[in-house]
Amino acid sequence: MDYKSSGVDIDAGHEVVRRIKGLARSTFTPGVLSEIGSFGGLFRLAPGEFADPVMVASADGVGTKLKVAFLANRHDTVGEDLVNHCVNDILVQGARPLFFLDYLATGRLAPDVAEQIVAGIARGCRDNGCALLGGETAEMPGFYAEGEYDLAGFIVGAVDRARIVNGATLEPGDALVGLPSTGLHTNGYSLARRIVFERLGLKVDSVLPGTGTTVADALLAVHRSYLRAIEPLLAGPGLVRGLAHITGGGITDNLPRIFPAGVGARIDRRAWEVPALFQFLGEAGQVPVGDMYRSFNMGIGLIVACRAADAARVVTLLEGQGEAPRVIGELVSGERAVSYVP
Amino acid sequence: MDYKSSGVDIDAGHEVVRRIKGLARSTFTPGVLSEIGSFGGLFRLAPGEFADPVMVASADGVGTKLKVAFLANRHDTVGEDLVNHCVNDILVQGARPLFFLDYLATGRLAPDVAEQIVAGIARGCRDNGCALLGGETAEMPGFYAEGEYDLAGFIVGAVDRARIVNGATLEPGDALVGLPSTGLHTNGYSLARRIVFERLGLKVDSVLPGTGTTVADALLAVHRSYLRAIEPLLAGPGLVRGLAHITGGGITDNLPRIFPAGVGARIDRRAWEVPALFQFLGEAGQVPVGDMYRSFNMGIGLIVACRAADAARVVTLLEGQGEAPRVIGELVSGERAVSYVP
Repeated sequence: MDYKSSGVDIDAGHEVVRRIKGLARSTFTPGVLSEIGSFGGLFRLAPGEFADPVMVASADGVGTKLKVAFLANRHDTVGEDLVNHCVNDILVQGARPLFFLDYLATGRLAPDVAEQIVAGIARGCRDNGCALLGGETAEMPGFYAEGEYDLAGFIVGAVDRARIVNGATLEPGDALVGLPSTGLHTNGYSLARRIVFERLGLKVDSVLPGTGTTVADALLAVHRSYLRAIEPLLAGPGLVRGLAHITGGGITDNLPRIFPAGVGARIDRRAWEVPALFQFLGEAGQVPVGDMYRSFNMGIGLIVACRAADAARVVTLLEGQGEAPRVIGELVSGERAVSYVP
Repeated sequence: MDYKSSGVDIDAGHEVVRRIKGLARSTFTPGVLSEIGSFGGLFRLAPGEFADPVMVASADGVGTKLKVAFLANRHDTVGEDLVNHCVNDILVQGARPLFFLDYLATGRLAPDVAEQIVAGIARGCRDNGCALLGGETAEMPGFYAEGEYDLAGFIVGAVDRARIVNGATLEPGDALVGLPSTGLHTNGYSLARRIVFERLGLKVDSVLPGTGTTVADALLAVHRSYLRAIEPLLAGPGLVRGLAHITGGGITDNLPRIFPAGVGARIDRRAWEVPALFQFLGEAGQVPVGDMYRSFNMGIGLIVACRAADAARVVTLLEGQGEAPRVIGELVSGERAVSYVP
């Protein structure tokens, strides 16, 4: 009996590592001090880059969006989803990304698939100026179905202590500016898959009614990064008073996470057009509207909170980045919850 | 159709988060600036703590040791395995841990099991002075078998730039000092499980021949941390020239990872007694001896490389920490590989 016969192929693992090395190296920034293959990845902040640096870290997965990738046999975008998700999660505290690590687990390592996945991660890292500093590729016989895998990511960024964004100063009357999502991002897939594949019996290459694209293209649209859009706003001290990334739980659960006590939000649902994909899912699945806004981002992927007097400037700055911002509501006195009109 | 009927229970998720909060808070160190529940965790190095801090990061999983935890229905130790594994992976570059994040994925969230898992993570974090800064708990219907889960961890530590340990100065003649492992640690489980459960048909509560303990106790022995043992050695500049964590790939694949070109190792297998567990696995599985040393740690979990003249001092310092170090070999001229005698 040897190790390979037990289902783990150490040599296949080495082959994957070899392919990953070049991809990771393409993401390296001047802060990276280590070579791939050391036990840990080394990263050094340039002296003076931050007056009083605070590290901001987050972990996330891709969730069951992966099942759509399996069905479509398209593995080069989920890594980008993951990186952008993580980038947004630290961006909402004012941080810019420094480095990223991934965890890829599968039953049997297919070097080609692993390479596609990591190629997506590396593209996402490069686009966000973030180094892919390391990761773990685990072959776990008996854990995952043939051809399936799980993927998690971990990001570390930095923000100057005086520039941390945490919503602490939010108060009734502040404006809420929404930025468009590119689709479901990485949330609501268990419900969406049930509607699309089980209830409607669609295939990944079917046209998704009302959207003009295939199911695969609609459901695998890449979770976008808001880094480039938000960076110019963060340069002006005090302009951004709070940022919320609309992930699992939708606007309903995510926006209140940044509220101080005594603050709630009123969202005007007429302020933006809910994209066809969400309208279709709601109708086809007969999903109660309350569940829709707690399961999906409904077309808004990030919300900026600012003083009402600054809203026009925030909108202008965002438009200058090629964005399509909308004032979608305001803060009110309340119990850290969201109410919707109409 | 609503979200809960799609297999994802957002409220169960909130309940898990509530239970985890107290556990995570028990690990907080003075560097933690954030509360659990923010999008990212915030950590600040105390000014002056490091002259020129370099961050060292690593990602890892528990591997198929999890399958033994499932069989034994014992979920409070795998988190400690994971933290200690990660701590050792950055310790070998001279870093001490700052913070940790976990990724826990399961088909259906059982709050009690999730709480046991995170309790183990929190204990591991406390024991290593490492803050559990955040994490992701993912409910992924259709990904994992009933009662099963996957668990990954991410660690960030710091080391002063001048104190990075990387093996660059290693040269022929240097001594190799081994420190005992506490069992299989987290590697070789696919092979070990095949021998124990498939070939021998043992159960988790069977006595494992030659070890005097049950299969569950022998195979779930916690992967130890070497932080406390190694810290005093790192205080003396230049004393430790290289450190290797013996993980997947055994001494054979891990030790050469720290070698500069032109350096190899000769390991004297008579220098330590291979624990009964490994002897039993080798005999019962008729595993070729070369595969044993490339699949298992064989009783050595960490190797310290130092000048031959410093070996006695290294051994004395380690003994002062209650350790049982053994000089197990030396560096030789060679091709970044390990040879064994006899």
